[in-house]
Amino acid sequence: MINKRIQMLRQKMAERRITIYVVPTSDFHESEYVGDYFKARKFITGFTGSAGTAVITMDQAGLWTDGRYFIQAAAQLANSEVELFKMGEENVPTVIEFIRDHLVQGGGLGFDGRVINGRLGTELKELAEQKKASFHTSQDLVGMIWEERPAMPMEPVFLLEEQYTGESTTSKIKRVREKMKQSNADVHILTSLDDIAWVLNIRGNDILHFPVVLSFLAITQTECCLFIHSKVLSESVRMQLEQWGITICDYEAIYSYVAQIEAKKTVWMDCDRVNFNICNQLNSEVKVLNQENPTVRMKAIKNPVELENLRNAHVEDGVAFTKFMYWLKTNVGKIPMTEITASDYLAERRKERKGFLDLSFDTIAAYEANGAMMHYCADPESAAVLEPRGFLLVDSGGHYYQGTTDITRTMALGPITEKQREYFTIVLRSNLNLAAAKFLYGCNGHNLDILSRGPLWELGLDYKCGTGHGVGYLLNVHEAPNGFRWKIVPERKDSAIFEEGMVTTDEPGVYLEGEYGIRTENELVCCKAEKNEYGQFMKFETITYAPIDLDAIDPELLTKREKQLLNDYHHMVYEKLSPYLTEEEQKWLQVYTRAV
Amino acid sequence: MINKRIQMLRQKMAERRITIYVVPTSDFHESEYVGDYFKARKFITGFTGSAGTAVITMDQAGLWTDGRYFIQAAAQLANSEVELFKMGEENVPTVIEFIRDHLVQGGGLGFDGRVINGRLGTELKELAEQKKASFHTSQDLVGMIWEERPAMPMEPVFLLEEQYTGESTTSKIKRVREKMKQSNADVHILTSLDDIAWVLNIRGNDILHFPVVLSFLAITQTECCLFIHSKVLSESVRMQLEQWGITICDYEAIYSYVAQIEAKKTVWMDCDRVNFNICNQLNSEVKVLNQENPTVRMKAIKNPVELENLRNAHVEDGVAFTKFMYWLKTNVGKIPMTEITASDYLAERRKERKGFLDLSFDTIAAYEANGAMMHYCADPESAAVLEPRGFLLVDSGGHYYQGTTDITRTMALGPITEKQREYFTIVLRSNLNLAAAKFLYGCNGHNLDILSRGPLWELGLDYKCGTGHGVGYLLNVHEAPNGFRWKIVPERKDSAIFEEGMVTTDEPGVYLEGEYGIRTENELVCCKAEKNEYGQFMKFETITYAPIDLDAIDPELLTKREKQLLNDYHHMVYEKLSPYLTEEEQKWLQVYTRAV
Repeated sequence: MINKRIQMLRQKMAERRITIYVVPTSDFHESEYVGDYFKARKFITGFTGSAGTAVITMDQAGLWTDGRYFIQAAAQLANSEVELFKMGEENVPTVIEFIRDHLVQGGGLGFDGRVINGRLGTELKELAEQKKASFHTSQDLVGMIWEERPAMPMEPVFLLEEQYTGESTTSKIKRVREKMKQSNADVHILTSLDDIAWVLNIRGNDILHFPVVLSFLAITQTECCLFIHSKVLSESVRMQLEQWGITICDYEAIYSYVAQIEAKKTVWMDCDRVNFNICNQLNSEVKVLNQENPTVRMKAIKNPVELENLRNAHVEDGVAFTKFMYWLKTNVGKIPMTEITASDYLAERRKERKGFLDLSFDTIAAYEANGAMMHYCADPESAAVLEPRGFLLVDSGGHYYQGTTDITRTMALGPITEKQREYFTIVLRSNLNLAAAKFLYGCNGHNLDILSRGPLWELGLDYKCGTGHGVGYLLNVHEAPNGFRWKIVPERKDSAIFEEGMVTTDEPGVYLEGEYGIRTENELVCCKAEKNEYGQFMKFETITYAPIDLDAIDPELLTKREKQLLNDYHHMVYEKLSPYLTEEEQKWLQVYTRAV
Repeated sequence: MINKRIQMLRQKMAERRITIYVVPTSDFHESEYVGDYFKARKFITGFTGSAGTAVITMDQAGLWTDGRYFIQAAAQLANSEVELFKMGEENVPTVIEFIRDHLVQGGGLGFDGRVINGRLGTELKELAEQKKASFHTSQDLVGMIWEERPAMPMEPVFLLEEQYTGESTTSKIKRVREKMKQSNADVHILTSLDDIAWVLNIRGNDILHFPVVLSFLAITQTECCLFIHSKVLSESVRMQLEQWGITICDYEAIYSYVAQIEAKKTVWMDCDRVNFNICNQLNSEVKVLNQENPTVRMKAIKNPVELENLRNAHVEDGVAFTKFMYWLKTNVGKIPMTEITASDYLAERRKERKGFLDLSFDTIAAYEANGAMMHYCADPESAAVLEPRGFLLVDSGGHYYQGTTDITRTMALGPITEKQREYFTIVLRSNLNLAAAKFLYGCNGHNLDILSRGPLWELGLDYKCGTGHGVGYLLNVHEAPNGFRWKIVPERKDSAIFEEGMVTTDEPGVYLEGEYGIRTENELVCCKAEKNEYGQFMKFETITYAPIDLDAIDPELLTKREKQLLNDYHHMVYEKLSPYLTEEEQKWLQVYTRAV
């Protein structure tokens, strides 16, 4: 079937004299995850992972993906002509290198210019020019052969009230305009969905677990144009937006809007986020200010109203998780359970909580060896049965009106090995050490990462990912520009200096392939500590409330300070959650938050 | 006197229609410290600090210097018209900003183009062009009015044998040529004195405590020209150099050499290190590869021979220091001592050691409140008298044929306060934690700095400098590109990834103005630890051997691990040093390296 689709695509390519066609994983907004409508790369290769790029030539078809997906991709590509290119492995060319090698002089290079960002598109354009190849970006060739394509998502928009956002839409637009003035920008083109949702205080449901709205925004000092499918706006929402001075335009009209920007104007637009077709519409005499959107930092710095809401959201979420953990620990081995039924039980508990809207991502409930796969997602047909021994790792979260949560706990379902206990305790030390950091203003995640990773490095262990990521407010669960990471990964753009009000996860782990995985994840709010002659000191407040399984800890491996940190944390967990629990659950929680 | 000199300079300026003249602190090689011949900025302002820039206009004279020198500069400038500009303070313009504001249209901007680097010189040239000002770099106006100027240093050159360097001159030149080939560079212009001394295995004495030789080097695939004052080469050294294929040219001939490089050639030259007049000689069609000199990393990675020598140098140095510490601790309060007599006693002990050549910098012996000044240098007339109480901080080092050392110990001369004991112990914790780091290959000083600074930050303390710097081998005691620092300071260029064989100091401290200073400094060699599926792990070996004053420690404040680290360190110190001590000293050392 895949080979047949590729043949059909090659026919469309041949008709246009295209010799190489690129199909990335993206929507028109460079979103991290995309709706089904946008899964063209999956359609053409059969590979279902969240990240990957397909490149089709007249006699070759390649899929590029990263280490998370090597095994899965190999299996899913096995019955097709698609070849797997393992990104980052030695002697494996990058997509760009492959195209450079395979694009013949006078050939043709094509892609849907709406699903490739301005930077990459420009690079490909230059490559085509070097090879005197024709260049095609206006047609979606996969779309032409995709008969049963899902519909473009157009879920209704709702407004998020100021009791949740803490700042009005007009105030946010005003702040953006001030930043534009400072940078002498006449127009700001904003196409990242979380930024638009944040500025306008709107939410939707156009991407699974990402409550955003497919739209574009153009801001000047006098205008604010929202490009959106008109049917997603109810009359009352539309009126409210218009009252705030927002002009509603058709979703597709962004391209002609950009084309009409006058020469000599300055346009602020992050070409890593704006799609190539938009960038390419600009008059060549327009000056582009290609830098991070002003909303990125604004959105990351949660205001006091958002922070207070978030603390409440985490109490709700912690109650749900604790009820789940109580049920799990008291029933495992007594009633049948699988990874799926366990995560369903947890989802049910979340749905009961105040303000709950959706899960913030697909729950990872991974038993023993499955826990070693960082992005495991249980399949109903092959889900592991939970037995009263070993570790269950559960990484999950919710979207509430009061904010978004992301929590991981690893729980002993019964006896564990001494090694498991040791490693669980080390991961706990890593988690506690980072959360207890006190540092001078000016530090970023590169400075602090070793506080978490250090105890693991000491044992010759590591986890092959960052230690933590920023979290949006009823938005993306992975939100730049803050994060914890020891090596700079430029495209992540998550090395911002920690500011008061930023929320970042703290999630060290140990992953032993074929054995088990351990991860303990809390969310941290950056706060001010004292200011003195040395500068402004900063610290973190932990806002995730749920017991860390004492059954899996070896207190002997903790320093005095670490014991104190753990006991203080558990004391807080009990104080926050017990009012919302049944008497039995309370008793259980008392035991599971006891001092060690 | 200063005002008179400035008036004379202004006359020279007026004759040339120069309206602004810049006098920085540099020799023709951008050395960190300079010989007396080059202290033009001191001559024209009276300020004696090691860092600062003077800018003279027809009616104003300014001196820019950094926080280390604010108090000293204010005092030294008090009786002249020179105004102090405190670098980094709010609302204080930078030198460039000041010149931009004060250079009138059609004015004249001048400086000696040999003492300003290519980057800054180019910036000033552009500034002059913007203001349509004349631009003068070929004359040293301060030199014209400086009647009793010290002679240009021309100390004899000696060759450092391969038993010390571990690599022949020809091998080093070959490695440089390979790097040049890889970068398609036809010519490499090397003007930094430590790089030249390293490549050629030559040493001299042209800068106090920096055993380098005033010279320039030009390398092609077939030629290696050394530009040097001919009188500094003995017949045998000259013959040896020529035998290695090195052409000896006159020191001043570098300028015409560079001018003759053919168009279209590529010249590798770090314009942050090469002086403006050299850069400015280049044919405009020569391609400049403006990047770090290839020798910077080569020189920083000490080879096994150098490392073994260094360990021996540190034993020699540790013996000297321990004899000094024994003498100090057993005699203070019994015989008269000052900061000066103490540092003289220490210098005498160093001079007795095998392979000793010179101190590696002016010893800092700072009693109590003086210790709070990081770069204190006792004046024979005002040196503090040492009494049997409080702290003496001694930061010192030696140049040996076996390498360069840099060690700081803070010693209790008698009773100390509880606060002093607490802070001393915290600094010790900082020092031990960094030295015990284990980390994945790829880390730089920004990743690791918090291991040292963290314990201080926890108490709301900090030190306003890096935690450590690279150390040369019988070369600069401050050597890039490795270092420990939490904030990136671009011009320091000390953020290199730690490689096996790099040597870096570990010197956290507490400095309380008007009270006391505490610093504990050891040198660390980066080594490989295990390699596994997570990557290559790295660690440090401490190669400074001298007791850390147990009289000043509160063991209660140390964790179990820290106690172990301290005890292991002291055990090693005793093993290394005791064979070279008298029986009495041995007994004393046994007590001062006892387990806590």
